Amino acid sequence: MDTFTHHDFDDHEQVVFAHDAETGLRAIIAVHDTTLGPALGGCRIWSYASEGEALTDVLRLSRGMSFKAALADLPLGGGKSVMMVGPDRPKTPAMMRAMGRAVERLAGRYIVAEDVGATVADMDEIATQTRHVSGLSGSVGDPSPWTARGVFLSLEAAVRHRLQRGLDGLRVTVTGLGNVGASLVAQLVDAGVEVSVADIRPEAVEAALARGAARSVEPSAAHRVAADVFAPCALGAVLNATTIPELAAQIVCGAANNQLATVADGERLRRRGILYAPDYLVNAGGLISVARPSTKLSDAEATARLEAIPETLLEIFAKAEAEQISPDAAADRVARARIAKGVRKATAA
Amino acid sequence: MDTFTHHDFDDHEQVVFAHDAETGLRAIIAVHDTTLGPALGGCRIWSYASEGEALTDVLRLSRGMSFKAALADLPLGGGKSVMMVGPDRPKTPAMMRAMGRAVERLAGRYIVAEDVGATVADMDEIATQTRHVSGLSGSVGDPSPWTARGVFLSLEAAVRHRLQRGLDGLRVTVTGLGNVGASLVAQLVDAGVEVSVADIRPEAVEAALARGAARSVEPSAAHRVAADVFAPCALGAVLNATTIPELAAQIVCGAANNQLATVADGERLRRRGILYAPDYLVNAGGLISVARPSTKLSDAEATARLEAIPETLLEIFAKAEAEQISPDAAADRVARARIAKGVRKATAA
Repeated sequence: MDTFTHHDFDDHEQVVFAHDAETGLRAIIAVHDTTLGPALGGCRIWSYASEGEALTDVLRLSRGMSFKAALADLPLGGGKSVMMVGPDRPKTPAMMRAMGRAVERLAGRYIVAEDVGATVADMDEIATQTRHVSGLSGSVGDPSPWTARGVFLSLEAAVRHRLQRGLDGLRVTVTGLGNVGASLVAQLVDAGVEVSVADIRPEAVEAALARGAARSVEPSAAHRVAADVFAPCALGAVLNATTIPELAAQIVCGAANNQLATVADGERLRRRGILYAPDYLVNAGGLISVARPSTKLSDAEATARLEAIPETLLEIFAKAEAEQISPDAAADRVARARIAKGVRKATAA
Repeated sequence: MDTFTHHDFDDHEQVVFAHDAETGLRAIIAVHDTTLGPALGGCRIWSYASEGEALTDVLRLSRGMSFKAALADLPLGGGKSVMMVGPDRPKTPAMMRAMGRAVERLAGRYIVAEDVGATVADMDEIATQTRHVSGLSGSVGDPSPWTARGVFLSLEAAVRHRLQRGLDGLRVTVTGLGNVGASLVAQLVDAGVEVSVADIRPEAVEAALARGAARSVEPSAAHRVAADVFAPCALGAVLNATTIPELAAQIVCGAANNQLATVADGERLRRRGILYAPDYLVNAGGLISVARPSTKLSDAEATARLEAIPETLLEIFAKAEAEQISPDAAADRVARARIAKGVRKATAA
């Protein structure tokens, strides 16, 4: 599959095919844009069916990281890496160290972090070869509370924007009760929200009910439950041609990555009159937390970025309404404009 | 076209697709092996029909540079770059500067030099962005005399090896009377050789005759002229399925790059009993000269490498005979072995 003419190439600065004969490493490191700073992004370790599939994945994810960092007002660009593993080419500590050397060769233009398939131990191996690694065990702690806080603040802002009211007495459905989802439930309960919860794990549901959630619903039917806000915090692609016509909420605002199955689904929500809070903006708290060491942001400065997410969200809603486009499309435009200007938004720390 | 599974991928350490939206730069930088040192190789600027064609070209050239540097006993690895230009994407000074930035991002793992399509002015633009550039105007001077000297010494060694004699009274045909070819003619004449010359430019032929060449022959028929040595110093692919059966020399030793049209042609020469001196070894003098600044070799150390070429050539001839393979195949094996050992041959400086 060609690189420069790839459908998702989108003006990537650099795409590096890194190989190590001894360990079997085959990795692609995509550096989308470093206008605002070094490209930070996770290393996904996956058994891809082909190099083309790996390339498509890394290019899309890398661009997404550029947009996310720009909207979170971080001094970071966007990048991502993928390691092609498989039964004949299993992940090993030696392969992770080879990956570390490949990252080191980029001399700081790319900062690697954890992603699907990568463990803290993998990151520790990488860190023996390069200091351009973020989110090591013990360095910044669990990012989940940061993510959950950003989603909560965004949800509050979206409700005020669309419904002109506060959270007290509101009905919100949260699907996916992992670290982030559970934390969001607690904050919503404390704000007086009537929370419905869904998860495939009964123990997670029980814990949420014990924390004050009003009721549990079937995960597969959660989007059909009448509510003011639907908050997906589990798998991606939950907003698609099947679920969107059935959605019984006026607002979608959750922590899950890649909630829209396709770009057409953003427009589909808009036509149904449902307000969509772009996932990569509202869940940026985790990135803000993980980025603290590389960006040298103090906790206070990082917190200021987190608390600025709702403001950016409102800017995006306003742009979407003015241009009659979906908020996710508006978010992409705002992100591109920030990168093009080459300057970060002046957030008071 | 896929990269990792490309026919010519051959364990490349790194293949970088570099892009600059503003200037239209599309370049591929291939770093084959840096075991022995940073990868030095030219930047070819060419209107490729496709990205696949550019990728194939850069991968082959890059590996060739690894082998060449290893056999020349230089503390260098092998790399190469190609810039994809065309009518809609012409080379500009700004594009060359973007290329310089792409080279700079590799932080010294790749050192760029001139190649087909690149001018001294282009290199000067690159040099405004990175110090990892070799062979700038005025820095090391014309490499041609170094190349010619290496070919002369190799030719002398090949003759002694195959014919057990010196050069005096020998018959050599030199095709291509550029800087290197003309210098080779002069050295051969001074050594008492009866030199036949061929070039498509009448003035170049006249100059060679004035310098003592015995006669001129038609370029297209030069390989058919009865001689002890055929010395191609012009285009590549001159040794092919058509010319090899017609060759009327016992030895081929010249300065041209890529003299063998295909790998099969090396074996074809061997079966005809013609001794082939691998081009990338015998013409390595130019690289040795150009590499002086990057390798910090003194002139004396560089000269020692140049004068060691015949010794390496004899080692290759011996290996080829012992293993019943062609010298070009033996040269590849010796180069790979030197790289695998990760140590340079201890040449006394």
